Amino acid sequence: MAGKAKHRQPIIDAAVRLFRQQGYAATGLNELVDESGSPKGSMYHYFPEGKPSIAVAAVEEAGRRVVETLETLAGKSGSTGDLLRSHAALLAGWMEKSGFRDGCPMTTVLLELAPGNFEVAEAGRHAFAARHEVLAEKLRADGMSDGDAERLAMLCTNAMQGSLVQARVERNRRPIVETADLLAELIEARIADQPKGRA
Amino acid sequence: MAGKAKHRQPIIDAAVRLFRQQGYAATGLNELVDESGSPKGSMYHYFPEGKPSIAVAAVEEAGRRVVETLETLAGKSGSTGDLLRSHAALLAGWMEKSGFRDGCPMTTVLLELAPGNFEVAEAGRHAFAARHEVLAEKLRADGMSDGDAERLAMLCTNAMQGSLVQARVERNRRPIVETADLLAELIEARIADQPKGRA
Repeated sequence: MAGKAKHRQPIIDAAVRLFRQQGYAATGLNELVDESGSPKGSMYHYFPEGKPSIAVAAVEEAGRRVVETLETLAGKSGSTGDLLRSHAALLAGWMEKSGFRDGCPMTTVLLELAPGNFEVAEAGRHAFAARHEVLAEKLRADGMSDGDAERLAMLCTNAMQGSLVQARVERNRRPIVETADLLAELIEARIADQPKGRA
Repeated sequence: MAGKAKHRQPIIDAAVRLFRQQGYAATGLNELVDESGSPKGSMYHYFPEGKPSIAVAAVEEAGRRVVETLETLAGKSGSTGDLLRSHAALLAGWMEKSGFRDGCPMTTVLLELAPGNFEVAEAGRHAFAARHEVLAEKLRADGMSDGDAERLAMLCTNAMQGSLVQARVERNRRPIVETADLLAELIEARIADQPKGRA
């Protein structure tokens, strides 16, 4: 089994990459096998329920990566504004490098499959919730109330996601960087306006 | 020709509906024909360049509808905040009615095809620009500077788009309504903070 286990992660990694660039429906199982460099049998071994179960694993993996990236950046960022700006710079760099073919590794799959596929929708819901929590923690550290931190975390996630779509159609990093900049400004103003704000 | 011309719009309408609910790649030409109620020949007559050209027409049509909706709501709304809230209520109603299968009629197609397909990307860019302009005009009427109006219009569009993805995975109208509410609050605070704000 150990010999086969090594192929599970390459299949998921290939799915994250291909689903992000071209979507779920456009990606065939053979393409996934080729891209992952795994023997065909391993696909059926690890994902006996087929392609939808690969989508679930890909959304979970993509969610983990986003949270890991955000946590690393949060550790180096002085404020939520800094975190948003550094995340935007990273995303913009990745987008440019891919010729604006990359983007959110979950959105396309979620739009194609959720809510029809319950497991995929749930994987997306958990991934977003984990992402919101990293931002909300940073917002609370900035002096935001719990309620405000939750709401702003969701707004930031939604806006950054939308900015990736905008960057694709413009083939330009501007929407990503400007969206993060403006969110940072608005958050800083809200902190300054708070009666007990630390700003 | 007049007899055939009547089938063009039903094909585009069917494409908007199906691409929005299940994406571009998952929608077959036969499904489009069936959904539109058009004879198969009309598909090749109006879209001799095939499915990608239907995607362009669908993105253009979807963009027109969003702008039309926003313009109608803008005419009835006292401020940008009102406009965002009434648009969110409308979107949330549509999403609920569709069992959270609907969403932005352009995003899935754009994520699947742009930037690889230049024409689709351009149709998306123009559609977003027209949408931004309706919001920017309302923001200027609220007393925002040109630069601020442009930036906030893009932020609002991006955030509302993201909220539709979130609503799908949560199978709940909350992300849509809360995102619009928070945007409205932030915009109102920014207007109040402006040296020459009308608020």
